[in-house]
This record gives sequence, C-alpha cells and structure tokens, in this order.
Amino acid sequence: MTETSDHVRTLARAAKAAGARIAQASGPDRRSILLAIADDLGRADARAQILAANAEDVEEGEARCREGTLARALVDRLVLTEQKLDGLCDGLGQLADQADLVGQVELERELDDGLVLRRVSCPLGVLGVVFEARPDAVPQIAGLALRTGNAVLLKGGHEARRSNAALVERLRETLRVQGFDPGAVALLEDRAAVDALLGLDREVDLIIARGSGAFVRHVQSRTAIPVLGHAEGLCHLYLHHSASPPMAARIAVDAKCSYPAACNAIETLLWEPGAEPALVAALEALRRAGVELRGCEATRAAHPELAPASPDDWSTEYGALVLSVRRVDHLDGALAHIERYGSRHTEAIVADDEMAASAFLAAVDAGGVFHNASTRFADGYRYGLGAEVGISTGKLHARGPVGVDGLITHRWLLRGQGQVASDYGPGKRAFRHRTRPVD
Amino acid sequence: MTETSDHVRTLARAAKAAGARIAQASGPDRRSILLAIADDLGRADARAQILAANAEDVEEGEARCREGTLARALVDRLVLTEQKLDGLCDGLGQLADQADLVGQVELERELDDGLVLRRVSCPLGVLGVVFEARPDAVPQIAGLALRTGNAVLLKGGHEARRSNAALVERLRETLRVQGFDPGAVALLEDRAAVDALLGLDREVDLIIARGSGAFVRHVQSRTAIPVLGHAEGLCHLYLHHSASPPMAARIAVDAKCSYPAACNAIETLLWEPGAEPALVAALEALRRAGVELRGCEATRAAHPELAPASPDDWSTEYGALVLSVRRVDHLDGALAHIERYGSRHTEAIVADDEMAASAFLAAVDAGGVFHNASTRFADGYRYGLGAEVGISTGKLHARGPVGVDGLITHRWLLRGQGQVASDYGPGKRAFRHRTRPVD
Repeated sequence: MTETSDHVRTLARAAKAAGARIAQASGPDRRSILLAIADDLGRADARAQILAANAEDVEEGEARCREGTLARALVDRLVLTEQKLDGLCDGLGQLADQADLVGQVELERELDDGLVLRRVSCPLGVLGVVFEARPDAVPQIAGLALRTGNAVLLKGGHEARRSNAALVERLRETLRVQGFDPGAVALLEDRAAVDALLGLDREVDLIIARGSGAFVRHVQSRTAIPVLGHAEGLCHLYLHHSASPPMAARIAVDAKCSYPAACNAIETLLWEPGAEPALVAALEALRRAGVELRGCEATRAAHPELAPASPDDWSTEYGALVLSVRRVDHLDGALAHIERYGSRHTEAIVADDEMAASAFLAAVDAGGVFHNASTRFADGYRYGLGAEVGISTGKLHARGPVGVDGLITHRWLLRGQGQVASDYGPGKRAFRHRTRPVD
Repeated sequence: MTETSDHVRTLARAAKAAGARIAQASGPDRRSILLAIADDLGRADARAQILAANAEDVEEGEARCREGTLARALVDRLVLTEQKLDGLCDGLGQLADQADLVGQVELERELDDGLVLRRVSCPLGVLGVVFEARPDAVPQIAGLALRTGNAVLLKGGHEARRSNAALVERLRETLRVQGFDPGAVALLEDRAAVDALLGLDREVDLIIARGSGAFVRHVQSRTAIPVLGHAEGLCHLYLHHSASPPMAARIAVDAKCSYPAACNAIETLLWEPGAEPALVAALEALRRAGVELRGCEATRAAHPELAPASPDDWSTEYGALVLSVRRVDHLDGALAHIERYGSRHTEAIVADDEMAASAFLAAVDAGGVFHNASTRFADGYRYGLGAEVGISTGKLHARGPVGVDGLITHRWLLRGQGQVASDYGPGKRAFRHRTRPVD
C-alpha cells in the first residue's frame, strides 16, 4: 500500500508537470494533439492492436456472462468495433475544432495607474477519473482533458483492462510523437491505486467518478479532493391536467424505456386530478413497453391492476423497467414531491398550459427542467456541448452535463510597479478600478 | 441535539422557500431590498438599537481582555461605530447598483425545430455562513446573499452575539416591510446549531466557513455540503536577482506587516543568488518593522543575526510578525518551493526582468500570481469586485476573492413540443444545434 501510494504520487506529480507543458503550449498545439490522436486511432495498426486487446477482454467477459458473473449489458458495453472507433475519431475531431479555453483573459481591470489585474482561464491541473468498464471512455475523457490542458490519471473497470491499456499506450505514444511528455495521461492499475489517488489532495485537483450512486458516494466520503459525479438520477415526469394524452404516452415511454439504466431516465410518474386521459394513455403505452408499474393508493383506485407502491418507491432509482406512479395535488403537490424526493438531476412537465409550464420551469431546483420533452435529452452530446465527462447533480462549478467548461478554472494575475496595499485607503490613494474591454 | 437539528432543518426549509420568492422577484426588486437595508441602517433608531447591543458585546469583550481570555485585536474587531455603519451603508448601496445576476440567459440553442435549450443563471439556494466575531460581516454577507436571490443562515462568533442579533432583527424587519418573507435571513444560536447545519446536505447548498485554517478544515471534514473557505494562506515573496532593492523592501514590509493575521500576508521570503542587494534591503526594512526573521543555513551564512529556521517553518502560517527566509536555486527553485509548500492562495515575484516575471506568472498554480505588487492586494474590494464572502483557495467554482459571481449557479431549461430522445441518432433525425446570440 505504501509502495502503491508512492507510485501513484509519483505518477500524479509527473502528470502535473507534463500537463503544465500542454497548458503552456498554444491553442493550435492542443488542437494538433487531438487531431493526432484521432489520426492514430484511424490507423490500421493502431486499430489492430486495440481490437486484439479488446477481443481478449470481450472473450473473458463472455465466459463470465455464461457463468452468470457478468451481465449481458456489461459485456455489450465492453465491445469495441471499427464503427465505434470511427465515432471516437469523429468526436475527437469535433473536440479539436472547439474553441480553446486556456489562457483566455476573462476580465481586465486597471486597479490604479500601472497596476493591472487580469483574470485568466487555466486548466484545473490533474484530473483523476474512475469510470465503468467502457473502453470508449478512455479517448473521450483523455481528449477532454488534453483539449483543456489538463493531465489525467485514468482507472477504468477491470473487465476492460486490456482495451484500456492498449488505448492509453496509443495515446501516450501520440503525445510523445507530438513532442509532449506522455506522462500527461496515465493508467492506474487496481483499486489500491484508486485508494492512493483519493489521498493525494495536494497533487490531484478533481476526481471524476462515474458509476453507480453508491460508488460515487463511496468516493465522496473517502477524499478531500473535490468530486464531480452524480450521486444518483431520480427524475420525474409530471402530467399536468392540460397534458396531451399522446404526447404524455410518447414522452413517458421514451423517458423510461429508451435506456432504463441511464441517470436521466424517469423513476416516478406524477399526475394530478384532470390528467386522467393523459395518465391512461401513458400507462397503456408503458405497459405495452413491458414496464412494471407500481401505484399509490389513489392511482390504484382507478387502476387496480398496478402493484402497490411502498413509500420506499419514491426514493428508489430502479435503473430498470419499473416505474412508480403517484397522484399529486396539482402543481404545488408535484413541486413538493420533487423537492422532497428528486435528486436535482432532470425534471419534466407535460402540459399544454403555458402558465403551468412556466411556473414549473421557474420553480424546480434541478440541473435540467424540461417542458414537453423527454428527460433523456439531458446529455452533453444532445445539448451540443460536444463530449462530456459526466453529468453533475452538484450545483457548484458545473451543473448538468459537464464538457470542456467544467475542466477549466482561472487565476488572478496582477502586474504592478512596486505598489503596496497600505498606500490605499481612506485619506490615501483611491483605486481607479477601470475595467477594460476584453474580446 | 435532535431538537436543535429539527429546528435548524425547519429554519433551512423556510429559508429555501423565502429565498425562492426573492429569486423569482425581479432584479429591480432585489436592488430595492438592498437599498432598503442600507436606508434602514442609516436611520437613527436602527443605529441606536445596534450600537446599544454592540456596546454590551464590547463591554464584555473588554472585561475578557482584561482577564486575558480575549485578545485586544479581537475586541477591536467587535467594535461598531457610526463611521463603520456609514461604510456598510455605502457598500450595500454599491452592491444594489451592481448588475443583477439572476435569471440571465447564458446560452440559447435550438437543438431542433421547436426544441429550445437555455442555460439560465440562478441562485445556489441556501447558504450557511459561519464566521468570526465581526458584526459588520452580517450586513455584508446577507447583502451578497439577497442581491443574488439566495437565503442565508448565519452563525457569527459568540463574542458578537448581541450585535449580530440586533443586525439580523433589522434585516428581517426590512425584508418584511419590503413584502418579502423574513425567513430568508436567519441567525443560528450556538455550536450545536452549526453541527446540525453541517448535516443538512439536502437543505443547504453551500457552506461558507471563515476563520482559522484549522476551523475551516474541521468544517470540511464534517459535512457533505460543498464548503467554500480558505484552509490557509501560506504566501511567498520571491526576490529575483533583477529585483530593485527599494521595491523589494517596500513590498516585503507591506506584505508581511500591514496586517500579519491576514491570509494574504506572506510567511516566507525566497531569494536567489544575485538578489543579495534586494535581500539586504528587505531584511533591514523588515527588522526595523519589528519582524522576527528565521533563515535557512545559506541565508544565515551571510546574515548570522537571523534565527535558524527549522523545516517546519516552510509550512507554518505564522499570522504574526514572523517571517522565514530561504535561498532558492533561481526561478525553478522558487517554483519548486512554492509548489511544495504554498497554499495556492497568492504568490509574488519582485523582478525588473520581464522574462522572469512572465515565466513566474505563467507557472505558478495559485489563485493570485503577482509581479511587483504586494500579496495584500488579493482582496475582493481591492480587485473591484465589491464585497466578498471570502477568499477561496479551492479551484472549483470560485477561486480567489468570492463576490456575487460565486453565489450563482445555473439550470438548463428545455422547451419542446413532445420531442423524445429516441427519435434522434444514426439513421434518424439529426440535431441542429443552432446557437442563438444572447445579450
């Protein structure tokens, strides 16, 4: 453990130094790094190396699936294909073409003659990213980190370890060929390394934790480093009495069924008196889509075929084709239920009544608040942010899908000619505070 | 404890509801609240009430000072005067006139026909602020919170409890007169209430902790709520060999002596071979100002009158007229020392050589990086940010002095016409992602 700890600290310090050189390079240099990574992942030899490593991971995953120790969905998520690699190359190309966010003068202010303050954007420094067994996350996350001048220590799911190692090897080789220190991207080997990472609060600037809510909370409780990760996604769909029944049905099915394990899927359907036609349409469509429905007493009075919901249901993220259904007392009841049980991720209303929609959008405290649209749109790609490192249910720094913006901070740079603070104050010199335009 | 806990939870929930009404009011309404608070604090009856309460706090403080249980500096900080109240009224007036940051559309993007995404700024929600025994902080902090549509639970130092209670009573009365719920500002009574506050991670959105580094770390280790606070301020002044001796002396004295307890005061002076004239000038001026100097071996070889510094000195925030002095191996040595021992607060170089200054400004990872200016300028008022709630040594969300910007977050609002995510993708509809200009 001490040896692991020293090793990870050494990796983190090397990563910081390597990242600093990328941060101090020019925007076009960072763009070139991304394009070179995309080029490399498009080459036949790189693909052969990556797909061979991936085939071994998948073979092992298939064997575990047959034994019953790994779910089919997780094996599917492991698989890399030429098509997936093409998609990754496209994504890296788009990221390369995004505006460079490093070294931007965000504010310039003359505090006094010859005393000029600038707020300048800069990378966070070293990111530690712990993520699920999905190898396509490696170039995505590394791409986001390098585009913003950050270094990154990666720990992916064990099931994808060979694929991850091959991908990281290619990334590091590309950095080397581009004249940068490959230490800016490094792979951590095991859980002991993650434990060591979480203790490095002087060396690591941000932990990004992807995975289950329980996993994210586990990470948050074990580190003094800021953690970006959604603890859970407990999203609601609220049917107002003005809801169009076919729209309610379409949105409910998409929001629950298009990817039930996603954090932006809904777990509870709320309806109010007057919304019965929309409720009936939604329940029928959900049932046809194979969703297990659990209702409150008031819902079951009209729909006795629903299983009874227990109070626990309101705070359960099923991550599966299960949905709880509750009658609420109009808009205020919906807002109160969401305030109490929601995870501040994404909440949606179906309503033709514009006043009700506006009131809902104004009142709900969540990263995303939607009117007549599926909660499944809460996603960096769909928002047009380019790639995302995750979706934050926290309110500070980044909220909702986190793209390159979330990996940037700033420093205050002050240039003077020997000025001292005690020369200023009542009866002494006064500050000018002349803000200059920046572009 | 359970009773306290329930009480504080009730206060926090009431604060959230009260704050939401202020957040949903208009910018001019929030401006009016600030102006009304300033007006009230300018009235003779309000001042009489506040100053009478303050006199009792000061009397008790003086008695404790005579007994030796309270430092003179802390008693001085307790005192409110007509002049201080005038200053507070001015500050509130300036805050009233700052641009309103709530409800700004920061980004507007048509994802597809009739599917419009907006990123809209909003308050964090409920702030919990724990601060030192300085009653002028009450209207400052409450002003910042209300200007940005946040509610605030305040717990100030026990020594100022009567002053704080009087000030909060006036603030709440002003809210009531303005037609808002006074619950948006509430005072916590004791440490048990602070403990309860730290446990309310669903009700409280941000903890602002002001006080000693040890206190801030104590708070950080006891809550799942994000904490904004500087754990410590361990700042350096580095004398490059091109440093002007008189400038080095002036800046060193200001940075160490103008307020030794401040987090932006320096603790260590670094110098490199060639900087001896600047070092001599600085040491002489510091000695005349009564500073106890502790040197490394290399420094003491030329200045044997300095006490020997122990390795602990490099990581000690003295908060007093003590300064450690160390010779470093040029710029790289200075950067390495700062990287290892600095608290990422504010770092300064004295140099006539523009290349060295630029290299220092580019390389140092700290909230503030200064050239030929005192570290004491690191302050929201001096930066022209208006009032500040504190100085953050964290990198996320807010870095350096935190003003109104740091109390704002955003939500993603999506308005559609029944669109669902599964209609989009390869072979299906494509997103348009047309970003519209916002002003």
